Amino acid sequence: MQKLYIIKIGGNVIDDESKLQQFLGNLSKIKENKILVHGGGKVATDISKGLGIEAKMVDGRRITDAETLKIVTMVYGGLINKRIVSALQSYECNAIGLTGADGNIIEASKRPIKNGVDYGYVGDVTHVHPQTIIHFLSMGLTPVVAPLTHDRKGNILNTNADTMASALAVGLSGNFVVHLIYCFELKGVLEDINNKDSVITDINFSKYENLKEKGIIAKGMIPKMDNSFDAIKAGVGSVIICHADDIINIIGKNEKKGTKLSLS
Amino acid sequence: MQKLYIIKIGGNVIDDESKLQQFLGNLSKIKENKILVHGGGKVATDISKGLGIEAKMVDGRRITDAETLKIVTMVYGGLINKRIVSALQSYECNAIGLTGADGNIIEASKRPIKNGVDYGYVGDVTHVHPQTIIHFLSMGLTPVVAPLTHDRKGNILNTNADTMASALAVGLSGNFVVHLIYCFELKGVLEDINNKDSVITDINFSKYENLKEKGIIAKGMIPKMDNSFDAIKAGVGSVIICHADDIINIIGKNEKKGTKLSLS
Repeated sequence: MQKLYIIKIGGNVIDDESKLQQFLGNLSKIKENKILVHGGGKVATDISKGLGIEAKMVDGRRITDAETLKIVTMVYGGLINKRIVSALQSYECNAIGLTGADGNIIEASKRPIKNGVDYGYVGDVTHVHPQTIIHFLSMGLTPVVAPLTHDRKGNILNTNADTMASALAVGLSGNFVVHLIYCFELKGVLEDINNKDSVITDINFSKYENLKEKGIIAKGMIPKMDNSFDAIKAGVGSVIICHADDIINIIGKNEKKGTKLSLS
Repeated sequence: MQKLYIIKIGGNVIDDESKLQQFLGNLSKIKENKILVHGGGKVATDISKGLGIEAKMVDGRRITDAETLKIVTMVYGGLINKRIVSALQSYECNAIGLTGADGNIIEASKRPIKNGVDYGYVGDVTHVHPQTIIHFLSMGLTPVVAPLTHDRKGNILNTNADTMASALAVGLSGNFVVHLIYCFELKGVLEDINNKDSVITDINFSKYENLKEKGIIAKGMIPKMDNSFDAIKAGVGSVIICHADDIINIIGKNEKKGTKLSLS
């Protein structure tokens, strides 16, 4: 089977124009099949503020009401997605911007109300339809996926980019050896949060349990790690968590960078 | 050769949710190859106003400065495009939203400064690359094209939707018998502007010249008509100007509606 790299970037790359350009320049040098999944970034917050729309939070979680959905559809699906696509085109990488609705690649259902909290227009992925994406890859296209899905009832839904990346990885693992790479602001999972070079190079499932117990892996990293281990269990070839600068070394030069996750 | 319908809708359909839904429901019933090109609509103006960005006009023409480009990229490429795509998906039509940058389908160059007027980030179409679109159509996808192109230097450019529709029609006329349909708020080109039923059913090039002389065709209709005749000269099978409600009668039922243009 052919290799496929699914690479996820977040706000720390998207919000910094020079970092973004450097990352996209590197990405365009990777000649293998690849899919980029991008998150949001602070521009959505800035535009919401500009329009006088306040972020609604319940228990520290953002609620996607109708106005917020408009903003994220505009910013994630329009501004950020097309900025990335046009930049990749300038680097001779034939990118195509997609949401889950485009070609019906990723379906979701509106998150049910839980403990009285209605998250609004937030989607939990229900189906990935790999065939259209496989076609695009065979045409030499590089899909650039925004963190939006749809419910096939006409609604766009705000969806976590990490989850979309792992859902795509799982959905395509029957057709490719999929390598899922989560880029973030650090060089990998750190042994000591105060030492940016203390990267833990390999984490298997029992070590993960151990690191959670010790509190070394905590908070926002836990859902990312859970997503990753679920993906590996479902057939994804490998998951690496690394700095955005390292993708060219990992993929292009086959160097060992970041934290590699494995089951055993 | 197979038939291909390229249908363009503007603000009068997009700005009215019930009209838009009815139109998209009708469109989804057309089983032949089809491409929808959409314009802007007043939501871009509303959002600009909300953000305190004033429309810049020179000689009655809108200037696309950097801030306005962000707005149209968000609104045309994100909000409107994804609203249409997700609605079509709910009608079982497998739509895919595209700008000219996506798959590099339509390239443009920034309009040169003319008589001292810099229109800003406005694109004049230079190349249509039909192969990717042909692939999409063969996959059963319905492209939904936003009025944005790119310059392959990393810039998105604001582009007239009528022009994009005719450029696509010409670019695909080597592979399909293309029928280009411009939907607007009237039933067709009118003999008498005060009588909405006075549709001129057929206009050839010499009649067009005559109607222009008489002032029956004037103002905004002239570039639309010029575009249309250029498209026919370049190989497009037919051009019809009609009301959005009539597409299902024209395509589905083969009825004669609107104004049909021909060379002779």
